[in-house]
Parts: sequence; C-alpha cells; structure tokens
Amino acid sequence: MEIINLDRLSANPLLPEVKKAMIDAISLDYGNPSSQHRLGDEAAGALDSARDSVSRLINCAVPNELVFTSGGTESVNHAIKGVAQAKADKGKHLVTSNIEHNAVLRSLRRLKMSDYRVTSVPVDPYGRIDPDAVAEAITDETILVSIMHSNNEIGTIQPIEEISQITRDKKIVLHTDAVDSVGVVPIDVQKMGVDLLSFASNTFYGPTGVGGLYVRRGTSIWPLLDGGVQENNKRAGAENLIGIIGMGVAAEYALRNMESRTAQAKQLKEMIVKKLPDYIDEYYINGHPEHHLPNLVSVSIKYIEGESIVLMLDEENIAVSTRSACAAGALQASHVLLSIGREFADAQGTLVITFGLNNTENDITRFLAVLGDTVKTLRKISPLYSKDKMA
Amino acid sequence: MEIINLDRLSANPLLPEVKKAMIDAISLDYGNPSSQHRLGDEAAGALDSARDSVSRLINCAVPNELVFTSGGTESVNHAIKGVAQAKADKGKHLVTSNIEHNAVLRSLRRLKMSDYRVTSVPVDPYGRIDPDAVAEAITDETILVSIMHSNNEIGTIQPIEEISQITRDKKIVLHTDAVDSVGVVPIDVQKMGVDLLSFASNTFYGPTGVGGLYVRRGTSIWPLLDGGVQENNKRAGAENLIGIIGMGVAAEYALRNMESRTAQAKQLKEMIVKKLPDYIDEYYINGHPEHHLPNLVSVSIKYIEGESIVLMLDEENIAVSTRSACAAGALQASHVLLSIGREFADAQGTLVITFGLNNTENDITRFLAVLGDTVKTLRKISPLYSKDKMA
Repeated sequence: MEIINLDRLSANPLLPEVKKAMIDAISLDYGNPSSQHRLGDEAAGALDSARDSVSRLINCAVPNELVFTSGGTESVNHAIKGVAQAKADKGKHLVTSNIEHNAVLRSLRRLKMSDYRVTSVPVDPYGRIDPDAVAEAITDETILVSIMHSNNEIGTIQPIEEISQITRDKKIVLHTDAVDSVGVVPIDVQKMGVDLLSFASNTFYGPTGVGGLYVRRGTSIWPLLDGGVQENNKRAGAENLIGIIGMGVAAEYALRNMESRTAQAKQLKEMIVKKLPDYIDEYYINGHPEHHLPNLVSVSIKYIEGESIVLMLDEENIAVSTRSACAAGALQASHVLLSIGREFADAQGTLVITFGLNNTENDITRFLAVLGDTVKTLRKISPLYSKDKMA
Repeated sequence: MEIINLDRLSANPLLPEVKKAMIDAISLDYGNPSSQHRLGDEAAGALDSARDSVSRLINCAVPNELVFTSGGTESVNHAIKGVAQAKADKGKHLVTSNIEHNAVLRSLRRLKMSDYRVTSVPVDPYGRIDPDAVAEAITDETILVSIMHSNNEIGTIQPIEEISQITRDKKIVLHTDAVDSVGVVPIDVQKMGVDLLSFASNTFYGPTGVGGLYVRRGTSIWPLLDGGVQENNKRAGAENLIGIIGMGVAAEYALRNMESRTAQAKQLKEMIVKKLPDYIDEYYINGHPEHHLPNLVSVSIKYIEGESIVLMLDEENIAVSTRSACAAGALQASHVLLSIGREFADAQGTLVITFGLNNTENDITRFLAVLGDTVKTLRKISPLYSKDKMA
C-alpha cells in the first residue's frame, strides 16, 4: 500500500522535471565550472542558468547576489556566523525571536560561547513577533537581526517587511530564515527589504542537501567555507552541480505554478481545519489564522503523546510528524509551542501536518478517519485523560 | 572530436556504476533519514550503507567516525576551525606547511584575524616536510597540526605517519587534507595515526560537492554547521542523499580496484616522464621521485607561460591545467612552486597533468606531440627565450 506523506517539511518528492534534469546532468559528465579549459564551459553555463532561475524565484536584483550552499542549515550558519565575524568590531549583540529553527538557535548559542550577546524577542499566542519589540531590543552594539520568515512547526509568517524598515533605519543587517517559505509563498527579497535570506531546495521539490543564501550587494559577511574562489569568493568548494541543476529546474516550476500550488494547498488546509471537529475533540489549532503557510496545519491534541500518534499512523501507512525531522532526536517539548503559551503536556500532543503537490482530498479523508480512531484508542489508555475525566 | 581530459584534479567523470546508483536513488524518492516514520527508513538504510562503504575505504575503526560533508573544502574548514574553537582555552597556536591547499591556507588566515597564531613549516626541494621541523614548531600553546597528505600541484606525499607519532606524544590534534589521496593511494586512518582527515568524492569518480571528514572518537571539535542532530550531532543539515549514495558506490570500487588503478596510472606517468625529453627540453619535473601521487605529473617549462599552453592545448582538444581549478581566478605565482625553490618565471610555466581510469597511452602520445609543437611555437614568440638564447 502506498504511504500517504503528510510530512512534507521532512521530505518532498522530486518533481518529474527535476528528476529528468538531474539524470541528464549525471549522464552528461560535466566538467568543473572553474577550470581553465573548455571542459568546464558547459558546467559554468549550467551553473549560471540555475543561478538565473533561482534568483528569479526570490527576485534578486542581480543573480550574483545568490550563493549556492549545501542547504538551509549551511545558509543560516553562514548568514549568522558570517555577519557576526565580519562586524565583531562594531559590536557583539544580536536580536532574534523565541521560535527560531535549531539552525538559528544553535548558531547563536555557538556565538554566545565567544562573548556575543543575544536578545530573543517573544511572540504572541499566534506565534507572531511585534516589530516594535524588535526595535526595542536593538542597541548601539547590535550587528544582526535574524527573524525567521515562517515557522516550521506552527506555520506563522512574520512581518519581515515592517521589521526591515526598522533595521534599515538603524543600518543593521537583517537575516531571515525562509527555508519553509521559499517556493511555497511568494518571496521578493527587494520588497521584503532583507539583506540575507536562507532557503532550501527540497521545500519546492528540488533535491535535499542543496540550498542558497541571498546576500544583498554590499552586505558585510565572511564566508563560512574559506578556500577557492567559487561563488564570487563567498563560498569555497567545488559545486554540487547535479543538485544545483535540480534546484534550478525546481525553482522555475515553483515560480511558474505558485498560484495553483498555493490554491491547492489552501484547499486541503481548509478541509482539515473544517472537518477536524467531526473526528476529534479537545484540541487547539496552532499558528496565526491569517499570516500562515498554506501547506501546514499544527494541532495540539490534549491527553496524548504526539509520538504515539505518529507511530500508530505509520502503521496505517500515513506519515506525519510531531515536529521538524531535524529535532527528531531531541526529546524536549517544542520551544515554539511553549513560546506561544501551550502547556508542556499539550505541546507533547502536537502533530504537524504538511502537504504538497500530489496530496489529494482522499489523503486527507483517510488521514482524518485514522486520526480519529487513533486518538480514541490512545485516550482510552491515557492516564492523563482518565484522571481529568474522573475529576 | 572527443576532448582528452588530463585535468582530473579539476573534474573526474562519474563511474558508470555511480551514475546508475544515483539515477536509481533519484527515481526512488527517498524520504528523510531523520524522520519519525517509515518513509525515512529506506533513506536511513541507504545512508548507513554509504557510510559503511566509505569508512572501509579509509579504514575507520567504526563507521560513525565518518561525517558526510559537502566536499573537501567543508571538511577542511570544519577540521581547522572546529578544533581551533573547541580548544581555544588550551591555546591559539597552529602548525601547518608552506604548500597547503587554499582551503587550509584561507581557513588559517581567517583564524589569524581572531588572534590565532600559525607556524608554517617549509618543505625541501621535492616538496617534502621534515617531521623534526614539525616537532620544533610545536609549542605549549599548539592545539592543531594540519599537514596535507598529498599536494595537488606537485603530487608529493608527506610522512604523515611519522608526524602523527610526534603529535600523539604531545597530545596535539593532527589533521590531514587528503583530498587528492583518498581513492588514489591506500589510506588507513588508524595506521596513519591522524585524528582528522578530509577527502572529496570526485577524486575517486564520485560526484562533486560531496565529501567526508574522518573524526577519531574523542577528538575535541565543534561543528561547522550547527542546527539539527544529523551526523551524530557533528554536522547539521538534511543530507545530500543522492550524492552520498554515489560516493558510497565510488568508494566500493576505489577500494576493490585500488591496485589495478594505481598500476594503470603509474604506467601513464612513467610514459610521460620517459618520453618527455623527446618532445621538449629545458624543463623540470616537480615533486618527490618516490613519495608521490601515481596520477600526477608536474612540469615547469622554461621561457613560457603555463596559461598559454593550457589555451593552445584546449584548441587541440586536450585539457590540462596550470594548477588547481580552485585557484584559477587568482593570478599570483603558485606558492607551492615558489616553496620548492622554483623561480617566479619557471613557476608561471608550469603544467599539472593528471590522469585517470579512462585515459590511455594514445592520449599521452597525442598530448606529448601537441605539447612539443606548442612549446616550440610559444618559445619562438617568447622574449625571455630569445633574450636568453642571444646572451
């Protein structure tokens, strides 16, 4: 039986057109784009073409503002550590939010070990940041503000454009982790006013282990990878050309089909939200009702463990997640859910349902039915549930 | 006309078996190895299997000592910066050699900007380091010795095993950049006694943008990429699974066919060295006559520019290089050639000829004939040559 994949933030399948482009690239035996002779010319051309496609997806002013990386995590590390090092003589203070991805949190934690200070701005119960709070957190020593575009657990989208007006006024570098946004919702780096933006190819049906960092011209940043002169001296190392070619094609399709993809995702999301009460009770929908990713629903279900639901749904050939795969090894309750005010126990009972191109209404119907049964079964054996109901 | 590729350090074609494995992986739509449900199981299995194959190629004690990276440059940056940060409280002094690759040199230059000090050990005219010089360079504050295994411009192989006896006695971490060695000559991290070893998949006919860092159990090192819990918490970020699967297959074949590959390379190398005097005069062969990569010949040809030879050979459908592709944008004379005592002008007239699996004696015959003609043509118009010959 085919598995219904409702854990798309963990892994999206490759688009057929991406597969074809990557297979062609494998067959072609490209040279090295940096080599001195003709064997590298076609490779250099393929690299340029992918850079054009991806830079159009986020509307770079020029394609050279785009640095290819090994994925969202490298982009985030590069942005945060690269600016921290380049601007250390100006100050060692950074501003972020309470609900960032581990790549941001742990990059910042690393900087704190080298005498940097970090102010973390809280979010409201919908997971949204108040731009005024960012303004208040900024000091004379602030060198970087890093606020995610959309949250990977609750889907809330932040007011980056308003935040950028503050950082531009104060001449502070602004980075946004847009790993779960690029290719899902329209992204325009010029309109948003960010200086740095991180993204990953798999979000829009390109390969994993490939991504990019947008670097606005003139931004002070050190490379994370020092060495050769690749990527305009911003990121050394021979390129993952096959992966980058795949990302280029994925970007073309993401841009071309943005509207229809968003409409399809919205439809499934509305279906889940509307029909959920027919199957389970005593739950919360997390995230902002309006500023929100179209392809994600986060539900905290009372009295049960999200991990148990994931395992039981897995047996029924349905893949969902309690949180990002990157944190799957960590057993703490989600800092994101605690930040929006969920109780510890409710945070543990949270499912992140994400869907994509080839999910159908039938997938959702089946998921809801199985979820309903699973929640009933789990609550029957839940000590928390019986205790509460007895009281 | 097919181009004869004698610039294999710049780009090796993929093995047919590697292509097949990567194409299969693309078709299979793997999940995320870190996900909580079954969709990730096959991916996790494929990742484990690749880790086993690659760890056998360098003889890790356990496969978990191997960290997958986005290539040699990331591995080198991770090793050097990761140890420098983890051991900063013990000291801020590092030891290296005069002939390292740019990834090492520039990582160290970056550290110098943060108050680290670096002692660079010279090499003899064959490009070899005296282990005693390493011992003398070590101080109480030394935290890392980074010496390359083989040099990418002259092919000299360093006495890493002897150097490791010194670093082990003094309890100092030893890193070796083995990017041009792994898959070309037998590498045994346990016998060599290194703590960290960097390598790249393309050297042994795997994809570019994929590599690894060997980290001996117990070595103090910070991640370069902070974030998720992938790679045993040593390297965050969703894996480039397709590329890693390709590297795994490439590693299997490299290990299995090491002897026959080495024999074939040696034969072509001996042919070049033996026949070169029939085609050109007034040249030097660079590198150590015994401790040397089998697949590389470096020739400094007097009175002419290497760049001109590369361009003229390119017109004749022969790809060679003056130096590594990573440095192709830089116009200075090679620091490696100056370090072994070549004059500036002779360094400029240097060709690096590297060959691989599908190069034949016919390739070499044609290359030598075209090189002979090219050198004659270029010397006719060389002011240096006429001046010297007139005198």
